[in-house]
Amino acid sequence: MIFDLKKYINDRRLLVEEFIDRAAPKADVMPSTLHSAMRYSLEAGGKRVRPILAIAAAEAVAGNGAEAIPGLIAAASSLEFIHTYSLIHDDLPAMDNDDFRRGKPTNHKVFGEAAAILAGDALLTFAFELLSSPEHMEGMDPARRIRIIRELAYASGSMGMVGGQAVDMESEGREIDFVTLEYIHTRKTGALIRASVRMGALSAGANDEQLKAITRYGEEAGLSFQIADDILDITGTKEEIGKDVGSDVEKGKKTYPAMFGLEESRSRARELQASAVEALSIFGDRAEPLREIARYIVSRKN
Amino acid sequence: MIFDLKKYINDRRLLVEEFIDRAAPKADVMPSTLHSAMRYSLEAGGKRVRPILAIAAAEAVAGNGAEAIPGLIAAASSLEFIHTYSLIHDDLPAMDNDDFRRGKPTNHKVFGEAAAILAGDALLTFAFELLSSPEHMEGMDPARRIRIIRELAYASGSMGMVGGQAVDMESEGREIDFVTLEYIHTRKTGALIRASVRMGALSAGANDEQLKAITRYGEEAGLSFQIADDILDITGTKEEIGKDVGSDVEKGKKTYPAMFGLEESRSRARELQASAVEALSIFGDRAEPLREIARYIVSRKN
Repeated sequence: MIFDLKKYINDRRLLVEEFIDRAAPKADVMPSTLHSAMRYSLEAGGKRVRPILAIAAAEAVAGNGAEAIPGLIAAASSLEFIHTYSLIHDDLPAMDNDDFRRGKPTNHKVFGEAAAILAGDALLTFAFELLSSPEHMEGMDPARRIRIIRELAYASGSMGMVGGQAVDMESEGREIDFVTLEYIHTRKTGALIRASVRMGALSAGANDEQLKAITRYGEEAGLSFQIADDILDITGTKEEIGKDVGSDVEKGKKTYPAMFGLEESRSRARELQASAVEALSIFGDRAEPLREIARYIVSRKN
Repeated sequence: MIFDLKKYINDRRLLVEEFIDRAAPKADVMPSTLHSAMRYSLEAGGKRVRPILAIAAAEAVAGNGAEAIPGLIAAASSLEFIHTYSLIHDDLPAMDNDDFRRGKPTNHKVFGEAAAILAGDALLTFAFELLSSPEHMEGMDPARRIRIIRELAYASGSMGMVGGQAVDMESEGREIDFVTLEYIHTRKTGALIRASVRMGALSAGANDEQLKAITRYGEEAGLSFQIADDILDITGTKEEIGKDVGSDVEKGKKTYPAMFGLEESRSRARELQASAVEALSIFGDRAEPLREIARYIVSRKN
């Protein structure tokens, strides 16, 4: 039987979006402007890569039906709250100063800068509210929940995502070396993708060997995702990528293709993808979704 | 024996500052500019009101020596990370646009706007890293830790501190009614002060009756703290309050004294303080520090 990746992704995306819609503060609850701003970006139609990776990692460990693991969908969705906050803050005038995101006006263009800063803060905080909520996480062992909270906090903090963004901002328009580029890649996007599969695997009760394999997959697939993104910034069309083509180059951002050229970058992304797939051998068929996602990451058009 | 509030506060402030210094990411660890920005504001010399309230609440429940409760100092300090991040973001040009805080240039004046936004994000995230850390929270039961994490997340999120700040921003320069003013007060500063004493009490294993009493104390002392702050903005000197006198009035912020006058505000603050003290009767002598802190809040000069 051929694995239908499109259906797989779509089914899980719907699960996650349904959960987010149910769990996120309602726009008609006070403070309603803040809640509207939070929902505007949550509902802006991302690919939900991180939550889907978390669910797929749980399935690699626990098999089909892993969606029913208590707290898994909430844990997976918490990643989307963090990712969404990071996009809102990255787009701010003081940061990347982007007017469009996924083809829509950015949060601060719609709600103003102050509201966008606060919406980001509130989304970040909400991720931890979710993971500590008795309602959404019921049935997951408290010690396991703590471990998952720690994963998310560490991956998104100063040694993870925020740290990567900080070094990226500092490096804008400067010559940077490969070590700095790798630092940015492994933190800015890599840390949260790594945490996605680890949080999914931990939700499913992964043992040390399984967690190690999933971690390698997450690191390598995450880096290939970043390289593919940087390639798309150059080769994609505005319709495909939902923002101006070449905007990284224009801002003087150092990227993999800027440093090594397109061909070398494509080949590096493929190598990483192959190695990420290899890391999954201990899971057998259960890891088929993770493998297909790794392949898709490198070949995608948006 | 007369209770020495100054010594009491000072001893606990040192405990908290020593912990923060030890736990916060070092300025020489990469990304060092981000870590320097985080530490700049952490070390800017706040009164550490929230951590001290948390410790005093734990002592009301568990008596002297409560400082030794596993995880208490970490939980108390996590409040200071949240408070510090909120000050950095509140001071941003898009928000209150303040150049000075506690007599020193604000974070964005020293490190730039982008770094200040990220330092705030990282401090917020670090609070949850701390509460989920095996190192700092060792010995506290995981279920209790989850409950404490939930307290902090809820109090600082869209229904708490960030929500209060959002409504405050929206209300600037507009006529607002008393209901809106109370909404802002109970969220913007009230929620985190309420959480401070609750987190301390929960760390010490408070029962429902104790938690209820502590909560009432926190709500009333918190509101009196806010009113006292608004009074000081009008009656204090620049040296005492570390920022320009009358800056709230200048910005068109609606405050308690702006709405009811100084005398009525002073009398309301005293009433709240008396009621907060009354709530503590079940704790006997153990709550003496909390009582003295409530009195100090209303009479302080900075």
